[in-house]
Amino acid sequence: MEQKKVLVEVSARHVHVTQEHLEILFGKGHALTPKKDLSQPGQFASAEKVDVVGARSTIKGVTILGPCRNASQVEVSLTDARTLGTSALIRESGYIDGTESVTLVGPEGEVVLEKGLIAAKRHVHLTPEAAAEYGVKNSQVVSVKVETPDRSTVFGDVVIRISEKFAPAMHIDTDEANAAGITGSALGEILV
Amino acid sequence: MEQKKVLVEVSARHVHVTQEHLEILFGKGHALTPKKDLSQPGQFASAEKVDVVGARSTIKGVTILGPCRNASQVEVSLTDARTLGTSALIRESGYIDGTESVTLVGPEGEVVLEKGLIAAKRHVHLTPEAAAEYGVKNSQVVSVKVETPDRSTVFGDVVIRISEKFAPAMHIDTDEANAAGITGSALGEILV
Repeated sequence: MEQKKVLVEVSARHVHVTQEHLEILFGKGHALTPKKDLSQPGQFASAEKVDVVGARSTIKGVTILGPCRNASQVEVSLTDARTLGTSALIRESGYIDGTESVTLVGPEGEVVLEKGLIAAKRHVHLTPEAAAEYGVKNSQVVSVKVETPDRSTVFGDVVIRISEKFAPAMHIDTDEANAAGITGSALGEILV
Repeated sequence: MEQKKVLVEVSARHVHVTQEHLEILFGKGHALTPKKDLSQPGQFASAEKVDVVGARSTIKGVTILGPCRNASQVEVSLTDARTLGTSALIRESGYIDGTESVTLVGPEGEVVLEKGLIAAKRHVHLTPEAAAEYGVKNSQVVSVKVETPDRSTVFGDVVIRISEKFAPAMHIDTDEANAAGITGSALGEILV
């Protein structure tokens, strides 16, 4: 049987902001400074960092990813959420209704997000071509097997997301990477 | 087919110490104060806490588990190891040769451990009776499947440990629990 291989990348905690919130945090007219391209075309890590403030503690210097979005959102691990003293629901990016409040602090101001703290639901970005080759559809839930020396793991509940704008890659958070003993990146096998 | 169910418990970061190190940390003649029994018979969380000091940062107030052992050892998540600014090898408890140094600080003194910082290799404690029923042997490596609403996971590389002194339970760390969306405890299925 043909193996359905996919690159597994680890997403560190990060923030997405609206242009409006960016200007509150960094000053009127501020634009994000692209620092490093991410694997998904057009997406980048910016030079801008903010502090994320929870009920119990603050995580300093969290990178903003660009470009700006229509809604601000903070993606953390469940370990981070516990450190912050709040809870993060496991959600696909952009689905923030009913999620916890969190505060962002920048050099020029702060923004209290009424909602937007999430732990990202694990997912695989695929191009339509790769999806057709692998025989999977958008929103399909699959498992992905990752073999490592000490912590081989099969991740269930992995959502397939398909777009021509994507590059093929699975994204997991740092808890998930640590649980599987993945440092940097790994190769996974999609099980359908 | 009969299902091989096992309780999955989450181990928070913790420290084991020798009586000698306990007395350096808490004073001559000090004995651990049992505070809460653990699932494994005779094991307990003590009232005593120490700070764990790494190259980059300190994690304060880490609980010492009792009773005292023949070698001191610090069990953290890989997230913790990164926070400390050091690295933790994934090891079975007690197998600390070649592991990183870490420093413990108590109210009366500090101890530099030349080795002993580990991330625990996931494992299942079984009684001889349960092991016989499940058809598994000591040191056998199995997988354990845990189903949760958003992060169902199959943990591979799980070591079976058998003793008459054990109570049946799988132990995972907080990264592994978070990766599987487990809060508190869960029920797993041993896959052989």
